[in-house]
Amino acid sequence: MEFRPSIVIKISGKFFDENDASANISFLRQVVSSLAGSYRIGIVSGGGGNARKYIKLGRELKLNESYLDLLGIWASRLNANLIAFALGDLAYPAVPDSLEDFVEKWSSGKVVVTGGFQPGQSTAAVAALVAEAISASKLVVATNVDGVYDKDPRDHADAVMLKELTLSRLREILESSQSVKAGTYELLDPMSMKIIQRSKIQVIVMNYKNISALTSLIKENKAIGSIVIPE
Amino acid sequence: MEFRPSIVIKISGKFFDENDASANISFLRQVVSSLAGSYRIGIVSGGGGNARKYIKLGRELKLNESYLDLLGIWASRLNANLIAFALGDLAYPAVPDSLEDFVEKWSSGKVVVTGGFQPGQSTAAVAALVAEAISASKLVVATNVDGVYDKDPRDHADAVMLKELTLSRLREILESSQSVKAGTYELLDPMSMKIIQRSKIQVIVMNYKNISALTSLIKENKAIGSIVIPE
Amino acid sequence: MEFRPSIVIKISGKFFDENDASANISFLRQVVSSLAGSYRIGIVSGGGGNARKYIKLGRELKLNESYLDLLGIWASRLNANLIAFALGDLAYPAVPDSLEDFVEKWSSGKVVVTGGFQPGQSTAAVAALVAEAISASKLVVATNVDGVYDKDPRDHADAVMLKELTLSRLREILESSQSVKAGTYELLDPMSMKIIQRSKIQVIVMNYKNISALTSLIKENKAIGSIVIPE
Amino acid sequence: MEFRPSIVIKISGKFFDENDASANISFLRQVVSSLAGSYRIGIVSGGGGNARKYIKLGRELKLNESYLDLLGIWASRLNANLIAFALGDLAYPAVPDSLEDFVEKWSSGKVVVTGGFQPGQSTAAVAALVAEAISASKLVVATNVDGVYDKDPRDHADAVMLKELTLSRLREILESSQSVKAGTYELLDPMSMKIIQRSKIQVIVMNYKNISALTSLIKENKAIGSIVIPE
Amino acid sequence: MEFRPSIVIKISGKFFDENDASANISFLRQVVSSLAGSYRIGIVSGGGGNARKYIKLGRELKLNESYLDLLGIWASRLNANLIAFALGDLAYPAVPDSLEDFVEKWSSGKVVVTGGFQPGQSTAAVAALVAEAISASKLVVATNVDGVYDKDPRDHADAVMLKELTLSRLREILESSQSVKAGTYELLDPMSMKIIQRSKIQVIVMNYKNISALTSLIKENKAIGSIVIPE
Amino acid sequence: MEFRPSIVIKISGKFFDENDASANISFLRQVVSSLAGSYRIGIVSGGGGNARKYIKLGRELKLNESYLDLLGIWASRLNANLIAFALGDLAYPAVPDSLEDFVEKWSSGKVVVTGGFQPGQSTAAVAALVAEAISASKLVVATNVDGVYDKDPRDHADAVMLKELTLSRLREILESSQSVKAGTYELLDPMSMKIIQRSKIQVIVMNYKNISALTSLIKENKAIGSIVIPE
Repeated sequence: MEFRPSIVIKISGKFFDENDASANISFLRQVVSSLAGSYRIGIVSGGGGNARKYIKLGRELKLNESYLDLLGIWASRLNANLIAFALGDLAYPAVPDSLEDFVEKWSSGKVVVTGGFQPGQSTAAVAALVAEAISASKLVVATNVDGVYDKDPRDHADAVMLKELTLSRLREILESSQSVKAGTYELLDPMSMKIIQRSKIQVIVMNYKNISALTSLIKENKAIGSIVIPE
Repeated sequence: MEFRPSIVIKISGKFFDENDASANISFLRQVVSSLAGSYRIGIVSGGGGNARKYIKLGRELKLNESYLDLLGIWASRLNANLIAFALGDLAYPAVPDSLEDFVEKWSSGKVVVTGGFQPGQSTAAVAALVAEAISASKLVVATNVDGVYDKDPRDHADAVMLKELTLSRLREILESSQSVKAGTYELLDPMSMKIIQRSKIQVIVMNYKNISALTSLIKENKAIGSIVIPE
Repeated sequence: MEFRPSIVIKISGKFFDENDASANISFLRQVVSSLAGSYRIGIVSGGGGNARKYIKLGRELKLNESYLDLLGIWASRLNANLIAFALGDLAYPAVPDSLEDFVEKWSSGKVVVTGGFQPGQSTAAVAALVAEAISASKLVVATNVDGVYDKDPRDHADAVMLKELTLSRLREILESSQSVKAGTYELLDPMSMKIIQRSKIQVIVMNYKNISALTSLIKENKAIGSIVIPE
Repeated sequence: MEFRPSIVIKISGKFFDENDASANISFLRQVVSSLAGSYRIGIVSGGGGNARKYIKLGRELKLNESYLDLLGIWASRLNANLIAFALGDLAYPAVPDSLEDFVEKWSSGKVVVTGGFQPGQSTAAVAALVAEAISASKLVVATNVDGVYDKDPRDHADAVMLKELTLSRLREILESSQSVKAGTYELLDPMSMKIIQRSKIQVIVMNYKNISALTSLIKENKAIGSIVIPE
Repeated sequence: MEFRPSIVIKISGKFFDENDASANISFLRQVVSSLAGSYRIGIVSGGGGNARKYIKLGRELKLNESYLDLLGIWASRLNANLIAFALGDLAYPAVPDSLEDFVEKWSSGKVVVTGGFQPGQSTAAVAALVAEAISASKLVVATNVDGVYDKDPRDHADAVMLKELTLSRLREILESSQSVKAGTYELLDPMSMKIIQRSKIQVIVMNYKNISALTSLIKENKAIGSIVIPE
Repeated sequence: MEFRPSIVIKISGKFFDENDASANISFLRQVVSSLAGSYRIGIVSGGGGNARKYIKLGRELKLNESYLDLLGIWASRLNANLIAFALGDLAYPAVPDSLEDFVEKWSSGKVVVTGGFQPGQSTAAVAALVAEAISASKLVVATNVDGVYDKDPRDHADAVMLKELTLSRLREILESSQSVKAGTYELLDPMSMKIIQRSKIQVIVMNYKNISALTSLIKENKAIGSIVIPE
């Protein structure tokens, strides 16, 4: 079979919490169907509200941070399973539980959908690890904002979205807001950035509400969201 | 180590949907702690609202009944994982995915917590299969009603709870209301009853709001809920 | 690769007990070879006399019903392994031990051969579960009778084979003779019928001695045995 | 827990082919029960007539020698499963499929029962590998002859049973009769002898019909069968 | 069994590169033997020169960073396997390949020895993850320096070892020297520190040449190396 | 996909110990790339100096022979992993740990690279087992000598390399020098020869320094090294 370049799509857990979650997934399915002939695709799914619910329950039961993260990971795998099933024959019908397991399932030639791997890291870190392992040229982060802003747009009305920025610039923006409690990692945690930097992975941050536009983003290099250039 | 008789506790998925779900789990933890020295305990957890949510999403995406059931099973395993972690060292820290896997984990001597096993059967059937495999003397079904009624109490104001009934009587009561859509099995499905009958397992149906009373039910044979006698 | 519709073939364990068992398997191999280009094929194998032998030994040793069923399941897997090996490169060279495992192996694109999955259900139930999971249009039950009779042909000389019948009609016929002891399930147990009904799977009951005719049955809709129509 | 020395019992597949196979297993169960407090016990089971049946079928289907051996191995695992279940809580309830897997299950502290591991070697070789891995002091080979004879007793009426012999003497006796066709290895194949020699394992060859005498053989050093001394 | 507090010992890969590596391991074995009755012990092993050798080979072959890290991880598991075997019955005889796997093996009650888990993180991060998951009170980092210095002692002759320091102080010291190339992480990477901070794990940095002193360090709180206090 | 005949390449562990090991692997990669379209390829890797290092450490720690062999096996798997990664998409990206596991990974259609399987046998025996299981027509043994000599060339200056010899002749030559200590098996151990003989596998012994010539050896039957004819 001829070579197909690899891309990774990281889907925020909030994608599954919207009222029209199944419509979201349908759009994703269309995008993957139209790309799968020309690209190999890895998908990483966040845990969303369901992860937060179980982490909250676990915290009330005084579980340690490691176990709380594991609950969030298992919730993210439930989302990943849903996507894998929605993709039918295009996808490998089981969700990996580690990077090594991902690599093995990836060798099937199918789309592989994964949730979290391990406590202490976000699903963004998982996406970066996966992108590195499959030598992906692009990592698309589909989240609930339109791109990277120069300030947190929830707090600053004058925040401006950046169409293109370097990874160092992104690091500066994120550094003040990074948190270490289970389930609260935002956009890219330090591990994600370390991987992205060392393997020079191009990151695109976009709104999952525009997920249908992903086809033209990938195939025609249409400008959507923010492009983060590793240097 | 001396012999400890085995019991199985089947927890309705609704247990995890209550506002005070973590309190529910704390009470269960106290019960298990007080029983674990004298009994070996298997716990089977339902999927609850979370299972229904994912099944609904899957149905909107037109997945087949088998895949819908699998989504419900994975949701039930998330609940099972939460209980296993809440039990700490008392429990085996991983959830089995089949009866054979259950039997292997059971040999650890620890409490084993499981969710669903397979499409086409309820978690009640899982509880019956587990009870049979570990030669349990009692299967406790903790649900959101106080016991078995002679008619459906949601429809009939004059429904009477039965303190004791035979399995055949239960079968008559349930037969009219049995459903086959994914995620809607009620109390005991036909497979559960087949297993309970062939292996003569005593079933106790009780309200999970009284879960704290389970210790005296088991240790002192205190009458709670309905006892179903296989004959 | 282009779409191939899926079919499931359920082979009675008695198939392996015949004096010319290897000839039986050779014929099955020819059928699968001629169909594999146009259809995806799942095969479910019963346990036969070997299952009964181990269940009998287990019963003499007073094992519980769950363990007896497991012995029967492992015997059926030995038959499944033999078929898988006989099919060579056409088949996945390992036998799944659960529906989830089947689904994963099925994604290889190969014929997957399986035995039993779990205590408390027949290999016919396994066949129905598999047919549902892979959205099979047809489930062929190859057994030691020519089709479904209006009465048990072993007891009634005037029994008539039905070329076509509804699932409800089949249910009526089977209801009187259903047994719950390990290893004695006949044709279709209640779980099989529940699955077949909810997923509208067409069932064909035929004699495994005519296994060579399966190619024309599938490819040319030739009338062989009894067709059971879900409604 | 205090140290218990380890012993390995190798049970010929013919043990399971006898008319009173369940009585044989009951006696074995009594022996294991009486020894398990003072010894750690590994059991290796042969495939017997069932292995030969499947190997014959496979040969008629022209499978390669490797696949034939695998069929025999799976048949031996069915016997191993039966023993494991018969031993109840004394045994680990799953059969290992490799030496590494055996070592992991052995760490449970339970009796571990295994069948074959790999094509190209007898279950006697498995027994020797297991004995070496668990640093067993004794390997008991329970077979259908009373011990080691100076000539093949099936061919020579004047064959004499040897109460004690060196491993080199045994090698001389066996060397003429060793066969390499799948399923026909006799007593000890070259790999078994290599392992026994390099790790100085004492071997006792005895008749499985005297299996009840094993307790006094182990506990009281009662002379039964032939003792093979590694030098 | 009564409660035993948990400790984690992280062994630098250089431990295995010394000329007297087997003596090193013997001392570790003595320490573990003397502590195992009162403490539960997790051991995390680095990859050392062997990891560097394979990473170098992989880099010459132009493998991606993810694969290079995996080679280093597998090398570290070889060291972990050696320790596990050296500990005999005290240790679980297989090396986990993820945190989830570690948690499951940990439930055996035995010492669990592990190498790396995942690309993008050091074995120090593994040690922190393990310490958090088992709620360890102490994480001992046994390396080839005597403790934490205020400057890098290889570059500065006037570097002073700190008997006690806060985690923030350690972070300042390490921040300048942190590297992101595979196999070159030093002491504690950012992920380790995040875990240590959020779960308030006490870290002790000591020279593995003093490994025999670990018993008195743990049992008698003898001051050895540097203590890092999370705040 | 059309039929491709299978070949097995056994690579001596010394291949990885050379100063230009990565060049060696590059040449192997070129050979595999040029053959993979027309042949299915299995590769078996020895443990080399790394295996000997860990076995020596283990022996100093007084581990039993079984554990020493396992250390050597794990070292050989590290080499196998390196080759698998170097082959990129051509190879299955995980190393099997038993013959059954090999067979399952082989069904992926990719090159499968394996190290050792089990104590008590050389990686040459692994290569023979693999060759038999995949019905390979040729087993290439790439080692650090140019072929099979009539006497040990390290001891006899007048040793003559044999371009062609029978398996019985090889057996005679090897018989005097065969050793049973862990890690010291030479060329072909008795198990390898038994498998080669019973399945009539053609063996070619060649120098791994000529690995680039393997393409013409396979494609054009160019005479390189020694051909061993089973009879």
